[in-house]
Amino acid sequence: MINFEAFFKLSYGLYVVAAGDKSSGNAYIANTAFQVTAEPPQIAICCNKDNYTSGFIQKSKQFSISILEENASSDTIGKFGFKSGKDTNKFEGSNVIYGETGCPIVLDDSIAYLECELVSTHDVGTHTIFIGKIKNAELLNADKEPITYANYRRIRKGLAPKNAPTYVDKSKITQPSTKTDFAKYKCNVCGYVYDESESGVKFGDLPADWHCPVCGADKEEFSLVQ
Amino acid sequence: MINFEAFFKLSYGLYVVAAGDKSSGNAYIANTAFQVTAEPPQIAICCNKDNYTSGFIQKSKQFSISILEENASSDTIGKFGFKSGKDTNKFEGSNVIYGETGCPIVLDDSIAYLECELVSTHDVGTHTIFIGKIKNAELLNADKEPITYANYRRIRKGLAPKNAPTYVDKSKITQPSTKTDFAKYKCNVCGYVYDESESGVKFGDLPADWHCPVCGADKEEFSLVQ
Repeated sequence: MINFEAFFKLSYGLYVVAAGDKSSGNAYIANTAFQVTAEPPQIAICCNKDNYTSGFIQKSKQFSISILEENASSDTIGKFGFKSGKDTNKFEGSNVIYGETGCPIVLDDSIAYLECELVSTHDVGTHTIFIGKIKNAELLNADKEPITYANYRRIRKGLAPKNAPTYVDKSKITQPSTKTDFAKYKCNVCGYVYDESESGVKFGDLPADWHCPVCGADKEEFSLVQ
Repeated sequence: MINFEAFFKLSYGLYVVAAGDKSSGNAYIANTAFQVTAEPPQIAICCNKDNYTSGFIQKSKQFSISILEENASSDTIGKFGFKSGKDTNKFEGSNVIYGETGCPIVLDDSIAYLECELVSTHDVGTHTIFIGKIKNAELLNADKEPITYANYRRIRKGLAPKNAPTYVDKSKITQPSTKTDFAKYKCNVCGYVYDESESGVKFGDLPADWHCPVCGADKEEFSLVQ
């Protein structure tokens, strides 16, 4: 038997993975980035095959990983995590530099970044594991702590985007039975769902300046889930 | 240029990975375990090829991952992380059960565990990435938080064992120049090095009941590094 809540005890960080070159590129939010060897320094990332950035990684043979700080803004997470680069140019209005390899690197809310050359590609079903050799690594802020995925989920009530390897269909989690007069409201911008039964606070009772904890959208951007 | 200190901003947990069956098996401490797909639920681990457990994973085609709690003891970390199963039976004196697949599962200081069937093996140089399909997942303690690798490093001054993918040769880290009258003392049990220049406290000035933060050995177990 699989208790999906056990999965939430696994620890992750939160990163912006970017790929492409000066002419075109994209970036997404990942929670899976992990060093796989020390000699040479290599890192692995796990990316949904439908992810728009995935194509740029395979084409440009390089990618960058920006490590988000503890207090990373909802703007940054919402922009890179909950919107698709197919519909919007995510680099517009962002602090993006191009590294030694020519790869785009997102500096918004980042405390360090790694620039990698694609070494190998491993098919694991819905996702691909990309192994990159680290060509360049910069520490931007030694004093700030990285945001952890647990922190992001707990404090910001963040949800995993549907493409994330850690996405869990909420219907699969064993929940104590809840009163049926609680409703759910969905953010039209990023898809975040405010569930009254989780907080015990009716959506209508939230302050007028309350905003989406994921993408920062106003309360007016929410619709009742039927 | 690679600043190795940037690597320390990556986030990980701390796990005991076990493999084998009732007749023989072994376990080691890993900081790399991460879900790679949701449908089906699959998890990846990264294991040094020299690691004694690696052979058991390949032979038994299964492995388990126990998620260590925030206050995991130095005993558990020292036993599974800094000793080789070639020299000692790590399961002796430990709370080990055998799961649905017959795979050993270490329960010492664990808050959840996952039992996996080996699906594929990916060579990444000194290490192997094993992909496992999750067959069984149990939450043992919902209220306790998992230990993070950052916490382990910071609070316990833990070092990565030499076989870990995140091992960093300390000589590669840019350090401010330190006074040369500081010395280093090495734990004869687990290899942990107490560096006076890091704490600013002479080894001789540490209290008599001070013990190795990694494996719990007494002060007498330390030798001056020449």
